[in-house]
Amino acid sequence: MRIYDIITKKKQGISLSYEEIKFTIDGYMDGRIADYQMSALLMAICLKGMDESETNFLTECMLKSGETVDLSQFGELSIDKHSTGGVGDKTTLIVAPIVAALGCKVAKMSGRGLGFTGGTVDKLESLTGYISSQSADAFFTQVDKIGISVVGQSGNLAPADKKLYALRDVTATIDSIPLIASSIMSKKLASGAHNIVLDVKCGSGAFMKTVDSARELAKAMVKIGTGFGKRMRALVTDMDIPLGVAVGNRTEVWEAVQILSGKGEQRLTELCVSLATEIASLALNLDTGSAKAMVKNAISGGLALNKMKEWILAQGGDISYISEPSKLLESPYKKSFVAKSEGYISGIMADGVGRASMLLGAGRAQLGDKIDYTAGIIFKKGYGDYVHSGEEIATLQSATNSFDQCESELYKALTVSCEKPRAKKLIFDVI
Amino acid sequence: MRIYDIITKKKQGISLSYEEIKFTIDGYMDGRIADYQMSALLMAICLKGMDESETNFLTECMLKSGETVDLSQFGELSIDKHSTGGVGDKTTLIVAPIVAALGCKVAKMSGRGLGFTGGTVDKLESLTGYISSQSADAFFTQVDKIGISVVGQSGNLAPADKKLYALRDVTATIDSIPLIASSIMSKKLASGAHNIVLDVKCGSGAFMKTVDSARELAKAMVKIGTGFGKRMRALVTDMDIPLGVAVGNRTEVWEAVQILSGKGEQRLTELCVSLATEIASLALNLDTGSAKAMVKNAISGGLALNKMKEWILAQGGDISYISEPSKLLESPYKKSFVAKSEGYISGIMADGVGRASMLLGAGRAQLGDKIDYTAGIIFKKGYGDYVHSGEEIATLQSATNSFDQCESELYKALTVSCEKPRAKKLIFDVI
Repeated sequence: MRIYDIITKKKQGISLSYEEIKFTIDGYMDGRIADYQMSALLMAICLKGMDESETNFLTECMLKSGETVDLSQFGELSIDKHSTGGVGDKTTLIVAPIVAALGCKVAKMSGRGLGFTGGTVDKLESLTGYISSQSADAFFTQVDKIGISVVGQSGNLAPADKKLYALRDVTATIDSIPLIASSIMSKKLASGAHNIVLDVKCGSGAFMKTVDSARELAKAMVKIGTGFGKRMRALVTDMDIPLGVAVGNRTEVWEAVQILSGKGEQRLTELCVSLATEIASLALNLDTGSAKAMVKNAISGGLALNKMKEWILAQGGDISYISEPSKLLESPYKKSFVAKSEGYISGIMADGVGRASMLLGAGRAQLGDKIDYTAGIIFKKGYGDYVHSGEEIATLQSATNSFDQCESELYKALTVSCEKPRAKKLIFDVI
Repeated sequence: MRIYDIITKKKQGISLSYEEIKFTIDGYMDGRIADYQMSALLMAICLKGMDESETNFLTECMLKSGETVDLSQFGELSIDKHSTGGVGDKTTLIVAPIVAALGCKVAKMSGRGLGFTGGTVDKLESLTGYISSQSADAFFTQVDKIGISVVGQSGNLAPADKKLYALRDVTATIDSIPLIASSIMSKKLASGAHNIVLDVKCGSGAFMKTVDSARELAKAMVKIGTGFGKRMRALVTDMDIPLGVAVGNRTEVWEAVQILSGKGEQRLTELCVSLATEIASLALNLDTGSAKAMVKNAISGGLALNKMKEWILAQGGDISYISEPSKLLESPYKKSFVAKSEGYISGIMADGVGRASMLLGAGRAQLGDKIDYTAGIIFKKGYGDYVHSGEEIATLQSATNSFDQCESELYKALTVSCEKPRAKKLIFDVI
């Protein structure tokens, strides 16, 4: 078998066999296949596609390239969720304690962020004391005992995906549904949960710009997971405007506490309830109506917030942040971001908001950059709200007193119009 | 400008600008653009194509990446020919002295072979004493005086093409007409001739398998050359069966002498006359009929053969090989390759014959391998001929007495049938 012939085959649009895909991934990992050959193949895949079998084969080969987590001790209760990413997406911080409170087992490895804000682990580490690395024993024991542990990704899960992704990132070969689907699913499958719920975003702030492409990606991932014996569900949701009112790290934990206290912004609450409902319905074998009622009860009855405290405490974090959430909004410097003109907010470009939050210090430009946990944006007005000239739209906060660049990005991201814009749909599809 | 955006653009099928192509080629040459990015772009070009302007831009950038030869002192008389390659293709050895005898200026740099047989320079060096490297002064003086010099390629012509070709060769991105056309034309334009005649082969022994694809490539190259102010012509010719009766090095010089003496095989004679006619018609501003008559006269009157002697002598070669051509067929070992069954020869796969000649020692597997100048094959029977079982089809010759592997390759390349096969067309088109 020669990689030259495999590239030629895919270039001609012919499906690759399991043996050919295995040869390719194994050869790429052990160095027999060069980056320049793999990138030619990746471009051919982008332009000629891969069918369902090929996508499954690629997922399997990437999955088998590294370690896997065995969660079989939790029977059918283990759950995982994955969001394709967006600005202000703190759903894991909210959904995980809700479903843990209902008896699901959340043994979650999560990433650090590179980009607009930190990742889930960074947000958790913004709670002084939170320890994001545990021995396997401690991890499983905590999940067994309180139903939840969230740690940084350790171990060598799907290393072939990691190596391939790095290459795709510099060769303009990211945007292929089979490649994206197999990349995400190889990691999810390696993480071992029996029930997996996906939140596939679409819109200006998401990688998938249209509902149709997001739906296609969601379907591809559900098919892969089902083929590997997992219980799968996917939501296709809007990411045209940022999710919730907070962007940052501690600021996003603050919003998570708000939602879990039943006082959160309506759209984000709706999304979190929907995600938790789908997870509970899968893992606990409930119809959607019953699952939703349980999720709502867990929030209104305070069970979910209590579970969050239990969890943060178990991992060494300072739970006074949760008891007194105003502490999460403390910051050396704050500044009001005000409207320049009056009218309805008819657009808030999520990616612009993301760049603005990074300029405050909330994200990393490069691996190893230090995050300013206090940096962030709290919106006081949102999409569809009316603002007067000079009225505060958001509070900006940062450890350094320089807000000019951030404000300029935010003004670019904002559209103010005379007419009230149409309400934006949140959930487009459940697959 | 970022290579990422350029790759994305081409992936989407959008035409690249001159600035984008220049940025890409310059960046690839100075190492700012990595092999893995270039191979992704090359695959996108293979699958999405390049329009006429892009192809011209790419040719220009590759041409400008290195030195160019200035043949302006020869006015509009300088000529070059290029064949896309095939087994037993010794046309340069024949056409060059014919047109030099008619007053054209042949200042030709030619390659060494890697593959089935040597290249033109190897074939010339098989004539003891032939010197294939000259100073620029000596080269131009000889062309001025006797109208012809053929040397090995020196200097740094189109190095970007060389680097790109090496990458295409290992990433299955060879077969793109704009890439092939710009690759060939960048080298031809760097070589400086005013009149260029191309012999684009098609068939089993050629890179282009069909007449249509060969015609498309020929048109693309003619367009490029015309755009650069060159006088261009291209022939689309058959390479389903080997050209002429001889394959090897000295054996091919022998056949060249036969043709120039008017005693050569009919098909090869016809091709050489056609190529020489097109060259003479371009360079000397003649209609095809007059040009053809002059070419035929140059052969029948002995002018062309004399020019060959003059040329070989000027470059130090032993011209007794030309006066007594039987010396060119001397070899330590010879063996008859005989028919196993009786019938008409209805197929001789050119690539199989090429492999057979290499097994005799006539070609190089790797750069630096030594060529056996005496090794080769002389066909006694050709396509369409009737053979009896045990009758000699070809004479094999080599410096080593081992013919078994070669014979086995030849038997595989040969088809013998009961019915006489249809005559094969030689020239499909003139563009």
